[in-house]
Parts: sequence; C-alpha cells; structure tokens
Amino acid sequence: MQKRRKLGRGVALVGAGMSNFGMYKDKNSKDLFVEAFQDMTKSVDKGLNSNDIEALYLGNFSNDFFMKQSHWGPIITDLLGITPKPATRTEGACASSALAFREGVFAIASGFYDMVLVGGVEEMSKRSTADITEGLAMASVPYEGKAGFTFPGVFGVLATAYFAKYGATREHLMNVTIKSHNNAPLNPKAQFKVTIRDLMNAKIESLKKKGVPAPQWEDEKDFLHDPSANPSIAWPIHLYDCCPISDGAACILLVAEDIAKNFTDDPLYLIGMGQGSGKGLHAAETLTSFEATKYAAEEAYGMSGLGPEDIQFAEVHDCFSMAELIHIEDLGFFKAGEGYKAVGEGLTRLDGSKPINTSGGLKCKGHPVGATGIAQLYEVWTQLRNKAGKRQIPIKDLRIGAAHNLGGTGGTCTLTILERR
Amino acid sequence: MQKRRKLGRGVALVGAGMSNFGMYKDKNSKDLFVEAFQDMTKSVDKGLNSNDIEALYLGNFSNDFFMKQSHWGPIITDLLGITPKPATRTEGACASSALAFREGVFAIASGFYDMVLVGGVEEMSKRSTADITEGLAMASVPYEGKAGFTFPGVFGVLATAYFAKYGATREHLMNVTIKSHNNAPLNPKAQFKVTIRDLMNAKIESLKKKGVPAPQWEDEKDFLHDPSANPSIAWPIHLYDCCPISDGAACILLVAEDIAKNFTDDPLYLIGMGQGSGKGLHAAETLTSFEATKYAAEEAYGMSGLGPEDIQFAEVHDCFSMAELIHIEDLGFFKAGEGYKAVGEGLTRLDGSKPINTSGGLKCKGHPVGATGIAQLYEVWTQLRNKAGKRQIPIKDLRIGAAHNLGGTGGTCTLTILERR
Repeated sequence: MQKRRKLGRGVALVGAGMSNFGMYKDKNSKDLFVEAFQDMTKSVDKGLNSNDIEALYLGNFSNDFFMKQSHWGPIITDLLGITPKPATRTEGACASSALAFREGVFAIASGFYDMVLVGGVEEMSKRSTADITEGLAMASVPYEGKAGFTFPGVFGVLATAYFAKYGATREHLMNVTIKSHNNAPLNPKAQFKVTIRDLMNAKIESLKKKGVPAPQWEDEKDFLHDPSANPSIAWPIHLYDCCPISDGAACILLVAEDIAKNFTDDPLYLIGMGQGSGKGLHAAETLTSFEATKYAAEEAYGMSGLGPEDIQFAEVHDCFSMAELIHIEDLGFFKAGEGYKAVGEGLTRLDGSKPINTSGGLKCKGHPVGATGIAQLYEVWTQLRNKAGKRQIPIKDLRIGAAHNLGGTGGTCTLTILERR
Repeated sequence: MQKRRKLGRGVALVGAGMSNFGMYKDKNSKDLFVEAFQDMTKSVDKGLNSNDIEALYLGNFSNDFFMKQSHWGPIITDLLGITPKPATRTEGACASSALAFREGVFAIASGFYDMVLVGGVEEMSKRSTADITEGLAMASVPYEGKAGFTFPGVFGVLATAYFAKYGATREHLMNVTIKSHNNAPLNPKAQFKVTIRDLMNAKIESLKKKGVPAPQWEDEKDFLHDPSANPSIAWPIHLYDCCPISDGAACILLVAEDIAKNFTDDPLYLIGMGQGSGKGLHAAETLTSFEATKYAAEEAYGMSGLGPEDIQFAEVHDCFSMAELIHIEDLGFFKAGEGYKAVGEGLTRLDGSKPINTSGGLKCKGHPVGATGIAQLYEVWTQLRNKAGKRQIPIKDLRIGAAHNLGGTGGTCTLTILERR
C-alpha cells in the first residue's frame, strides 16, 4: 500500500489544444506543434501572453529514430519564440507526453514556476511501415522487441490469454472497435471519422462498381469476421483491432492554482496523478493485467481520495482493442474478467454509464505516440468544459474525468484525474 | 531579469556514484548502471534500503540511435529491483542527466516524493565513429546537423570567432587541455589517466623502438603543435582538444531536506538550479557565448542568492577545450574575453583560485553523453565531501561547488549549485 501522495501547491489547466491527427506528407513536427499551440491559445478564455510561459516539457518517443532528429525541446521553444526559456523532453515510449504533463505539474507544485507549457509530438508516417514497426519495438524490453516480438504480436498474446481465462471471444474485441468507430466521426480532429458500418457500406459499393458480388454482411460483426475485409494481423488481433500510424501534436497550459482565474473562470484542476513501471511480459505475473497501471491507479486514486466509481468517464490507452479491455479492469472500472461483458452491454458507449474513449480513442482518433498522453487529457479537458459538441457526454453534472496512458509492454503507465469545480 | 526562483521544500543529496568511464566491449548500459548504483549505495553513510526509492529519473541522449533500444526507464527500475516504482527518461542531448537531476528535485520539492534516484547512462562505443558522429549531430538543430555541421566543426567555428574577437590562439586551447590531462590521472574513474607529458614521452619511446628519430619536443606545447602527434580535426580544433567517445553511468540519491540526516550526517544541499534553451548557432547573436548558459546561470544564481565569485570550484561542459573557455566566461567566473588569460595564469588548475574540471573534465574523464550531467555533480559531491583523494582541492573551507552541463549547440544548458553546511 502506497502512502497518500500530495502536492505542496495546486496546479490547474487553463488551456488545451491539439492538431488534427493523421498521416501528413506536407506537415512536419514543427507544423503540427504550431497547430496544437494555436488551438491551445484560442482556448485560453482571458488570453495568453506567450512570454509568460516559463518552461516547456515535451513528450516525444523517438523522432531520433523516425526523423533522425533528437533534442526537440529547444527546437520547439525557438518555434514558439520563447527561447531562452528551458525545455525538457520526456520519454516513456507511448506514454511520453503523460510524463511531460507530470513534470510540468511537479515544476509548478514545487514553487519554482507559475506557468508551464506541456506538450507532445510525433512524426511517424514518413517512414515505411516496416521501419515504424522496428522503431516501436524499441519501446518494449530487449527480451521482446529484439527477439522479434512486435506490438500486434504482444496484444495478440494478451488477447489469447484473456480469452482463455475469461471466456471472451473475438466478438468482444469487435464491440470495442465498433464503439470507438461510432465515436470518432463526432470528433473533427480524429484520423478515421468513419463508423464500421460506413466502412462496410463503402466496401459493398466498391465491390458493386467492380461488378463483384458483395458478401452477405448483415451487420458490422459479419463484416469484421470476414478476413477479406478485416484480415488477421496476429491472431486474434485483426486489422480493425489496431490503431493507425499517425502524425500529430497536442499541448496543455498549466498554471499554479492561485493564478488560474487570471486566465479563465472555468479552469480544471489536477486532483490525482500516478505513474508506475513494469518489467515486460517475459517477467509478468499475469498476461491479463498491467502491474504499472495498477500502481499508477493506486497512486492517483490515493492522491485524489477518489475511487474508480467516482471517475465519470475516461480515455484509456487502446493501442489495440484488447488493450482497452485490460485497462478498464486494471483501473477498477469493472471487475477482472468482466470488462468485456460491460462493453457488450454498452456501458462504455458515449451514452453509457462509464463512457470510455469518447474521442474515438487511439484506435480512431490516431496515435502519434509522443502526443497521445496530452491528447487524451485534451479530450478530458474538452468534455469537462462541455465543449465536445456532438460527442459531448450526456451526463448532467460532468465533473471528474481521467486519462490512462501506457508505454511499451506496460513499461510505463500513468493515470491522471482532472476535476471541474 | 528573471524573478527569484524558490522551492517549496529543500532537497538534499545523500549518496552519489559513478561507473568507470571508458570504451567497453564487455559492458552494456545495464552493467554500467549497476556499477554506478553499487558505488552510490556504498556512499550512503548510514545505509540505504533500495525499496525506499520512490521514483527514478534517467538521463539518456539516444540509446535509441546508438543501441536501437529506447524506453530505458523501466529497464533500469527492473534492473534495480524497484519495479513498479515509476521511471522517467529525460533528454536534452548532452545535458540529458542534468535534466534528470532537476526533475528529481522538482518531484521532491513538490511534496509528492521523499526519495528519488536520478541517474544517467550512455552506451556509445559499440557503434562506428561515423555512426556516433551522425548520432550526435541529431542533437544540434536541423539547420546544423542535417546540413553536415558536426560538433568538431561547430567548436572549430566558435574557436575561430573567439580567436578573432579576443586575440586568443591555439596555445590558449592547449592550456585547457594540459590542465585537464594533469587532473585526470588523479581520478581513478577517468577514461584517460595520462598527462600530455606522459603521452609525449610514450610517443618518443615508441618512435625510438621503431628506430625513427623523435621530433625535438621541448614541452607539451611543442608536442601539441606537431600535427604528426596532434592532427587537425576542424581547425583550430585538434585531436587533443576533443573529448573521447565513452560508455558510462552515474547516479545520485536525492531526499527531502528534512530526512537527509537519516542517511548521513554530511548531506549536501541543492541551493541553486537553472536551465535555459538556445536557438542554435544559425540564429545566435554571438559565437562567443551561449544564451542558454547565461539564462541558466541567472536563474541558479538568483535562487541561491550567490554570484559567480561565491562558487569555489566548478565542473563545466568541456566537450572541446574551446567550450571550457566560453563557459567560464558565460558563468561569470571571468570577464568576457579574459577566460583564456585566466587559464594561462593557472587560475583554473587544481591549486588555482577557481579550480575547473578537477575530474579531468569531459576531455579526460570521458563523455558518455547521457551520464555526463550527473557525473559532473558526482565530482562536486566528491570534492565537497572531501573524498577526492589526490585530486582534492586544497581550499580549506570548501563549501560551494557547481556543475554546468551543455546539450547540442547550446540548445539546453544548466547550472546546478551545491552546498556543504
């Protein structure tokens, strides 16, 4: 049992922004960060003088590998015109920018700074799929990645273990996929703004045009079961269980709680924060849970004084549909082995009792890995501030949301809880 | 003028360790970190239960590029047996582990944690020199590295500018080199434990053995002037102006000030901390100063209430001899354009009034880039605690020392000031 963590000074969020996510031939990391930054500045109700930003934390997984350029911190301060303010890059694989957020919080809570910009960026799509797969495998421990165990394979193994232990099937993964694809068209910044039904109908149209008789797909699951439409990647993980390759950026403006009202009458407050590490699957005690998530959750819940039942909605790290099932159990939203049933019952839908990944999730919103942690918090910000438009969660008194970020094969996991007061 | 920074809670150093630095075919990053960690645990006077470590911050520049393995945080927590405690990697090029130190300070000063391990590691020597040069160039801004401007070239340009502006010559660079090589044999962990005179005599011996008449070298400078002994790399930078390629690790144990005496009766205290960013040389206002260092120094001096005259000794980032001259001026130890004269007068020697790089510096101690920031602080720790043996600074009341770390072409610079009370 961890001791209850607390911060010496409260930290508030007063602005948040993100770029569109997608695969962009014509936008680089700088373009994407500027897009996110401009979006953020517009969100600061009472305006922002960017000269007041005292420091930058930037999450990036490996533009070293993807773009042969490291040391992005000062490139971004220069881009924003805030040099010589300090810039620190954080890296925790796909959780890199959740770590940037956390360091921004510490820097303010310590009393050293009053205003810190935290962000994340990744530029992946200009490399080949093989290169990207190799680059991402560097995020797992050497016993995995260097042994040829890529991420679709990892989550295929976890799914097999989960199925064997709890009796779930591919149909339950499909429920996650269909739900995420239902949310994404409501998010103008998402990479895939299409439902599975849209994809099915488009495929039928395209076959018709070619004069090929279309399969007798009665619903989305028929479509997802058909290997001609949804090929196997690493059984039971199929194409539509996987998040895409993406480029994108996101950022959040943090300030000391006592000055938050200078920037908006409606700030959000950080009330819980946790982070844990994991050894990798070769040494994991179970294949149906991430130790690092459980540790992070205990830390974050402990700090906030809340339990999973108090979290009204969450973004969780659904790099694969399977991952979402594990996380909603690890975070305590549902009991172990019951997450897949809850999803089947619609509880995690936008209009369910515990909406999960209203943004479309990594699966449909996109997953520029170093930007994802902050982009998840951007969704929590947007929902809590009642600015989510067509995907606004229909819960009246929306006050508490959370974001869960995972890096590698559970090597780094975080949980962050925000409150609107 | 920056406002005066302060921390809500004091932070103390109660242990420090480093591996030997060198080029090791038979040691990897994990081996090196264990060596540093074991050295650190021995330094904790009243003992350490490693289970009490609450979080890890790890500086690493680019094992992504050098070793095709990223996400080192959780690999190291697993190695130390402290999983699932959180681990965060920081990256700021060659200043990566000074950033880890800083984040460890913030995490404790914020009140969240009481004990944090901060460290750094880099494994470089298993790659070819061409690969390493390419990898390091990723630390400069794209206008530099991607345009083919490697680091010896960068510091050659800075030296040319400095010579032109202030009338310095290659002889003044040699004074830095000779001084560093005089210190290094007194440091058992240094990569090059030889003086320039040792190298000269060895060369004479070797030529004699071959029956070749040795040049008439009267002193070290004769030797360093001879291109057969000290070839030009990027004029006026010659071979012995350059730090080596190195593997190594270092770590420091940080605790909240109020519990420091549980671990030692002789802790050190963090009293000043600063960090700045720079745009790169293409946009620099001058080629004889780093804006980021000046900003970091102002922040650190401001926090400590001290000035450069109060710093009794320092480690500064001498990746090239030329760099040391710029830093001792930027930090205010000597006036602009007078650093080279001070070195010539011996003021920066071990027995001078302002000893600089008593460890041998990056030049001779070695420069495993991600480990350097913490390794510099290890030297300050060792000197302040009066444990530097033959290289102990002969100043009676040694109380205040500092470490300056530089990343890229001044993209990230830090100054950290420690006090013994």
